[in-house]
Amino acid sequence: MTNPVAAPVRGAGGMAPGEFYDEMVKCGPGTLGGTYLRQFWHPFAASADLAPGRAMPVRVLGEDFTLYRGEDGTPHLTVHRCPHRGTQLSVGCVEGNAIRCHYHGWKFAADGTCIERPAEPNGGGGLTIRTYPVHDYLGLIYGYFGEAAPPAFPPYPGFSAEGFLEPYVVKFPCNWFQSWENDWDLYHAASTHQTGEIHGPPPGAARHNLYMAMLSSEQWEETDFGVIKRMAALGGTAASVFLMPHTVRLLIPTFNEQSRLVGPSFRETYIMHTPIDDENHLFIDTQIVPGDAAATESYAQEFAKVQARRAASIRTIEAAAQIMRGERTLRDFLDHPMLVEIEDMIAQVGQGAIADRHHEKLGRSDVGVMLLRRIMARELHALANGQPTKAWSFMSDLPEGTTNITFDPTKVRQPA
Amino acid sequence: MTNPVAAPVRGAGGMAPGEFYDEMVKCGPGTLGGTYLRQFWHPFAASADLAPGRAMPVRVLGEDFTLYRGEDGTPHLTVHRCPHRGTQLSVGCVEGNAIRCHYHGWKFAADGTCIERPAEPNGGGGLTIRTYPVHDYLGLIYGYFGEAAPPAFPPYPGFSAEGFLEPYVVKFPCNWFQSWENDWDLYHAASTHQTGEIHGPPPGAARHNLYMAMLSSEQWEETDFGVIKRMAALGGTAASVFLMPHTVRLLIPTFNEQSRLVGPSFRETYIMHTPIDDENHLFIDTQIVPGDAAATESYAQEFAKVQARRAASIRTIEAAAQIMRGERTLRDFLDHPMLVEIEDMIAQVGQGAIADRHHEKLGRSDVGVMLLRRIMARELHALANGQPTKAWSFMSDLPEGTTNITFDPTKVRQPA
Amino acid sequence: MTNPVAAPVRGAGGMAPGEFYDEMVKCGPGTLGGTYLRQFWHPFAASADLAPGRAMPVRVLGEDFTLYRGEDGTPHLTVHRCPHRGTQLSVGCVEGNAIRCHYHGWKFAADGTCIERPAEPNGGGGLTIRTYPVHDYLGLIYGYFGEAAPPAFPPYPGFSAEGFLEPYVVKFPCNWFQSWENDWDLYHAASTHQTGEIHGPPPGAARHNLYMAMLSSEQWEETDFGVIKRMAALGGTAASVFLMPHTVRLLIPTFNEQSRLVGPSFRETYIMHTPIDDENHLFIDTQIVPGDAAATESYAQEFAKVQARRAASIRTIEAAAQIMRGERTLRDFLDHPMLVEIEDMIAQVGQGAIADRHHEKLGRSDVGVMLLRRIMARELHALANGQPTKAWSFMSDLPEGTTNITFDPTKVRQPA
Repeated sequence: MTNPVAAPVRGAGGMAPGEFYDEMVKCGPGTLGGTYLRQFWHPFAASADLAPGRAMPVRVLGEDFTLYRGEDGTPHLTVHRCPHRGTQLSVGCVEGNAIRCHYHGWKFAADGTCIERPAEPNGGGGLTIRTYPVHDYLGLIYGYFGEAAPPAFPPYPGFSAEGFLEPYVVKFPCNWFQSWENDWDLYHAASTHQTGEIHGPPPGAARHNLYMAMLSSEQWEETDFGVIKRMAALGGTAASVFLMPHTVRLLIPTFNEQSRLVGPSFRETYIMHTPIDDENHLFIDTQIVPGDAAATESYAQEFAKVQARRAASIRTIEAAAQIMRGERTLRDFLDHPMLVEIEDMIAQVGQGAIADRHHEKLGRSDVGVMLLRRIMARELHALANGQPTKAWSFMSDLPEGTTNITFDPTKVRQPA
Repeated sequence: MTNPVAAPVRGAGGMAPGEFYDEMVKCGPGTLGGTYLRQFWHPFAASADLAPGRAMPVRVLGEDFTLYRGEDGTPHLTVHRCPHRGTQLSVGCVEGNAIRCHYHGWKFAADGTCIERPAEPNGGGGLTIRTYPVHDYLGLIYGYFGEAAPPAFPPYPGFSAEGFLEPYVVKFPCNWFQSWENDWDLYHAASTHQTGEIHGPPPGAARHNLYMAMLSSEQWEETDFGVIKRMAALGGTAASVFLMPHTVRLLIPTFNEQSRLVGPSFRETYIMHTPIDDENHLFIDTQIVPGDAAATESYAQEFAKVQARRAASIRTIEAAAQIMRGERTLRDFLDHPMLVEIEDMIAQVGQGAIADRHHEKLGRSDVGVMLLRRIMARELHALANGQPTKAWSFMSDLPEGTTNITFDPTKVRQPA
Repeated sequence: MTNPVAAPVRGAGGMAPGEFYDEMVKCGPGTLGGTYLRQFWHPFAASADLAPGRAMPVRVLGEDFTLYRGEDGTPHLTVHRCPHRGTQLSVGCVEGNAIRCHYHGWKFAADGTCIERPAEPNGGGGLTIRTYPVHDYLGLIYGYFGEAAPPAFPPYPGFSAEGFLEPYVVKFPCNWFQSWENDWDLYHAASTHQTGEIHGPPPGAARHNLYMAMLSSEQWEETDFGVIKRMAALGGTAASVFLMPHTVRLLIPTFNEQSRLVGPSFRETYIMHTPIDDENHLFIDTQIVPGDAAATESYAQEFAKVQARRAASIRTIEAAAQIMRGERTLRDFLDHPMLVEIEDMIAQVGQGAIADRHHEKLGRSDVGVMLLRRIMARELHALANGQPTKAWSFMSDLPEGTTNITFDPTKVRQPA
């Protein structure tokens, strides 16, 4: 294992961070970044938000699609518009696992074959529309948007523990890479997230020291399936796994409301950042709240109250906008059930829709960000030169520390 | 009468449908489409929405104007801005049939002559502003925006029957040609408009069969004044007349609320689609509800209740937007008093602000749409080559079937 | 003193009014207009809107900045973003007179020196961010945005009289130069502002005659510090002073609500128009309401009621938008406490976001506007040719008539 900071960032393909960034933040078809992203599965909606028989338009990687769920519960993903006259298919009707256009009733089977055109002879006339592989997994809907055969599904292992599955999807109005870099940046949690303390720098000494100890012990290793980060912390070891192009598996402390339900603890979590377009993305996570059947039932009841309180609160995107306009401050939202999300949003969206990376001043604590950029630059450089990108394998075995919490969570400060 | 489908669409001037469409959807000054449109009268407001003494800005064919009604009731149409300092004239005051600018009080007579500049010597200083021919007709305000002398007014005959005049104007946030093509497309009514049935394809067999019978009997004829479509239906004949550039005279069934007032019947209707700009247009219609004085008075009282219910309902443009975003479905609006309009809006606006026609798959039932495009391509081709466009004559005599309902409306399924 | 109208407008550098205007309305960095504007102090916020310890983003001259007030009350102005990762500094925290970034806690002293980076060695690492000179003055916050050393502060003398200071800042959604020209245009007050009369042209004869008498007596003189306009009016003399780039010192009658508090009188006023960007600016004024301590206390109590009434009224920007869309008329707002502002807004914003000056028809009453343009064209021409612009001096002594109201205000019509 080498220290990734020692290698020059420019080393990979001669691409400087700024140049790389300008390519990486583009997700549309035909762009270098968009071409790379289309090699992977992307979650883009919560499974629970799509009832059987319902259709909705979705925008992913700068393109529009029609997503619908068949009456038997199977999800389907097709092009946005009817090939006949161009009306968006999502305003039509789901019939079984087919979708029928609202305008003239053309009907398309789950495989995209046109099977009925009511006012035309010859049935479907041999027409087909493009469909996309799609799956429900861990409470999320995943799609594959590339031209080549999709990689194996699922893209990573699920949760081994018994418990309550908590998927979550929210829009961030900024480029996806700003949030993805944030995942590689441990120390921000000490300053950005001071939940439960009086909010405002400097971070309390205990908090600062905890994160500095973890930060200084970080060991990064690139493997066949991704990048493992190991930290010696609180007498034990924790590990996070970063999977391309925008997924991290890690243990995170319970935040806000939830923590009052389950007490101080950590959850196994996947965090993902699927681009909507270049200036918006979905922050997505899915977590397991460990517990047996009785504990899970009890948690579910309490969690329903949390959800009600979330629904009654100002949306985080609007709270963040108010803070960024200077009308209110973070202190005005200390009681918000999604305070941590507001903290992240003003840090990330507050960089602008697409951050300018040409003049930034990185420090030693940005080692993770620099490593990520080096890997991405290497991959995009290969792509730009017609060379194969790295064929990441399936992460079958979780690294030690990812599944087992070996340090003492009671030593981490928790909300009261 | 030849079958228009037999002639290749490309035939007229070598212009393929896609090329044609890209030109036709442009309405601004100097564009091919906009130049063609400026040969005709265009309705652009409801007469009742402009009280005597009031002024308002209007946007038609991609340009801004000032519309005002003199204190004696005469409508006037002028340029948007005062020539002095550029303040929009509509924020000024109407005096008699003149308009006075809010900023420095410059006053312009109905013919555009400047007749007063309070702080200047020499009265109006010989200044004039451009004015445009404008008329009230059938409850609508029509203007002429071309450079040449305007064609005769009115552009088509009014209604012969005694009854209640019902003009209507609403904004559609998409290109005007999408709605105009819809008028040439009979079958959409079977699938798009299933009012009173459980909403959702497939169209009921009776409804489908009725429209297929009408569709298969369509006979198209281009005349000196427009295009006549005759249909053998229900043992009789119905005729619609299409007048350039965007008007259709037809018999349509009474929809929604109105039908409960007058019972199953048909109304004589003009439907029009005036461009606001390339991405928005006005859907306009004016109808006659036949009846003697007593019936008309009774209808008027009932119609006032319908209007109150419309005013209390969500606007159709917002309902359609909710459906197109996937937040709600058409089924959520089955009780909306303007359900038919929502159905049309999601079909037409759902094609995008300006539909992409380069990849569509037309069928036999699109015979009307293809004929319309062939005529438009012919006219634009002439215009592009400096040749005269067709001089459409005034439609003095309505074709048989337009004025007389010769089929039995009780055989058409009506709302309960 | 020569008649400025006699000199051709094109004279100054061969720049025609239209060409000049196209340059003058640009305020961004690197533009000719923006370069000129960066030689001056600009007010851009009300002092009272920035509490100690608060930060906010501000946009001035087309650029974004972070404004904050130290806990001791001192205002500070810095770049918009943290140099580390680009998060906007205003979402961070004020500590003493320093500001700390929300994301990783980097802390910057009032002089821009980075003094703490919690997760990094070497303290601030020798980093600095650009700061800008900033001052509170007459209830407003002023900044200097140029590269060269700033001119002396304050930019002009304060008020000599004892009394109540009334600063005011509101956004106008149009180019700043449209409002600045309005200050040089006396007669508009006769027609645009008919407060207290039945609203609508023509101006009452008495009002018209009063303004024409003033207009015809205007004497303009360019001095070392600005332009003085003297008017013989009502048996006395009044003087206004125009200071580059967008400030006028004048006596204006009390408007609307205030007039009911203090009776018919005139106030000493500075009016300013700071660009936000090319399509928006701040209308700013600061006034002195003369009176001894007791009168000021009494006024302050009454003024609090006026402010409450303002807060309960529709915002002027929305009222003006409704009038400009034709939904309402000025007469619908005769009771609005800021009627005069609505009158100005529809006149100025009603010219469009950036007025087209290429086709306007100026008159004799536009002598002030023409003089302003001639001076601006001269300055921009010098700038464009690498020659020094005029070094305006500090206005230490107010011209006679500016401080002393020598005409009889009872002869001016006032609201009842």
